Amino acid sequence: MTNIKDLAKMANVSVSTVSRVLNNHPYVKEEKRLAVLEAIKKCNYQQNINAVHLSKGKTQLVGVVLPFTDLPYFGQLLKGIANQALEHNYKLIIFQTNYIESRELEALQMLKQKQIDSLIICSRTCNLALIQEYLSYGPIVLCEKVEDTHLAATFVNHYQTFMKALDYLYEKGHRRIGYTLGRKTGTNSHERQSAYADFIKKYQLPNNPDYIITGCYHLEDGSQVVQSIQAMSEPPSALLVTSDQVAAGIVAYCQNQQIAIPDELALIGFDNQPIAKMLGITTIEIPIEEIGKNLFLQAINEEISSIEMEAKLIERGTV
Amino acid sequence: MTNIKDLAKMANVSVSTVSRVLNNHPYVKEEKRLAVLEAIKKCNYQQNINAVHLSKGKTQLVGVVLPFTDLPYFGQLLKGIANQALEHNYKLIIFQTNYIESRELEALQMLKQKQIDSLIICSRTCNLALIQEYLSYGPIVLCEKVEDTHLAATFVNHYQTFMKALDYLYEKGHRRIGYTLGRKTGTNSHERQSAYADFIKKYQLPNNPDYIITGCYHLEDGSQVVQSIQAMSEPPSALLVTSDQVAAGIVAYCQNQQIAIPDELALIGFDNQPIAKMLGITTIEIPIEEIGKNLFLQAINEEISSIEMEAKLIERGTV
Repeated sequence: MTNIKDLAKMANVSVSTVSRVLNNHPYVKEEKRLAVLEAIKKCNYQQNINAVHLSKGKTQLVGVVLPFTDLPYFGQLLKGIANQALEHNYKLIIFQTNYIESRELEALQMLKQKQIDSLIICSRTCNLALIQEYLSYGPIVLCEKVEDTHLAATFVNHYQTFMKALDYLYEKGHRRIGYTLGRKTGTNSHERQSAYADFIKKYQLPNNPDYIITGCYHLEDGSQVVQSIQAMSEPPSALLVTSDQVAAGIVAYCQNQQIAIPDELALIGFDNQPIAKMLGITTIEIPIEEIGKNLFLQAINEEISSIEMEAKLIERGTV
Repeated sequence: MTNIKDLAKMANVSVSTVSRVLNNHPYVKEEKRLAVLEAIKKCNYQQNINAVHLSKGKTQLVGVVLPFTDLPYFGQLLKGIANQALEHNYKLIIFQTNYIESRELEALQMLKQKQIDSLIICSRTCNLALIQEYLSYGPIVLCEKVEDTHLAATFVNHYQTFMKALDYLYEKGHRRIGYTLGRKTGTNSHERQSAYADFIKKYQLPNNPDYIITGCYHLEDGSQVVQSIQAMSEPPSALLVTSDQVAAGIVAYCQNQQIAIPDELALIGFDNQPIAKMLGITTIEIPIEEIGKNLFLQAINEEISSIEMEAKLIERGTV
């Protein structure tokens, strides 16, 4: 690919002369100007858009940090972000991190180097203090509840939502309630853990650490969840499953094993994915696409806002 | 965000003076140089990475054109691409097109303007001749069989694969076989249609245009597929369903309607998604992540190659 240096070499002039010719600068000898134009013609040189970005200080690019691209939750979030990006004539740079901190840092570094105008962090592993150091380089938007008023965010109140779901299971007669998480760290998981701790305290229920099952992301993880509770002397009678994918995997595995849902095991999923509707799973609806839309709009807005989204219990047949 | 123009204004010098100071050019008056350095210090100016790209002629960015980000097929393809991008220190720009041609053109335009080094087109709506016009600006890789030797591609031979699946259903005794597609256009769909046409000719089966059901992408589309075949006077006894998502939707709807699979309706899905395994769906395994990996490697390679991937029938319980 021809660049300004190649042109300079071909025309036998300095790089700054090429730059002056490209920018119609007056002080260029006619002879050199013609040599540069000839070189440009010869190699079909297309003015580099990076030169335009350099002079404007804007790239129309927004970075999106996601741990995984193949989980329906993040796919839908990305869809909401991408549709807005299209409407506002922005492009997205994707950072698929697998929750590896250095990959999040790369995204922050690109913001610092002005290769993106702003950054949406859908889920993170690096700490908030580190993110704050990059705030002066452009807007950073998070998908979790943050106290810092310098950070924009669209989020669901996972403490309240989790508590509501736990109370619902309690009202339905359940006293041994467990839950599944993707990972233990992360603001959303912390909120859920803290809701659970307050819940068992409120009703003076025993605290059984085995009832918290982590590493649950995919459909395939459902069978392991069931196997692990089957191995317990006092298995939970109900589970909050923070992904409909995992909940669907549990339903399918229980069907195979002839474990009756909800009689032997009650379930509440999260997200209200199409698969939850298809399998009749009671779930907490999260407006994922709408959250994606807000995240994008916040990313291109100078004003810093914090938007709480409603989550809604959808009663179906698994409780 | 401060750019070179802002610095010039603050230092009360010309833009080219700022540029010379940034590049350590010798012919700058000391007084002006100090003014620029003072301005830089004042606003914490970070040298724009776009300036670096401009001088290198490379961006370490690869564009990825996808119609949808929320379909598991494309999510897995993107995962394969993204993992390789990480390994080779590239970033991805995502173009979610919803099959709108102008959005594909934008991606091609960005290649022309050198905002990306190369382009991966996972599925397209614009014609091949148009894509060929952009080949001089950087590598373009397709995910379909192409005759043009200037285009790199990783693909599955959908003609052969479809024929093999049709033959399998024929051997199992089926004579009324239908199939579902996402859209009728697109190379992969054309190959499938042409395999089907040759198949019914080979066995002298009647050609029923109702047996081709289009617009099938999602889990939710399964119920409509079943409803549409229920409305036929002579419904097909077997379906090739070109997405495991749709096949899963069909299985779930049939369970609800007490339609026996495979006795009343036999099914072969495509992809071998986890949901196919979960529901025991006979399917054609497509190595999606591996395809994504190849697409990326081809995108950063100067050599043009064409890689055919194997698809494999996985026998389960729906035929």
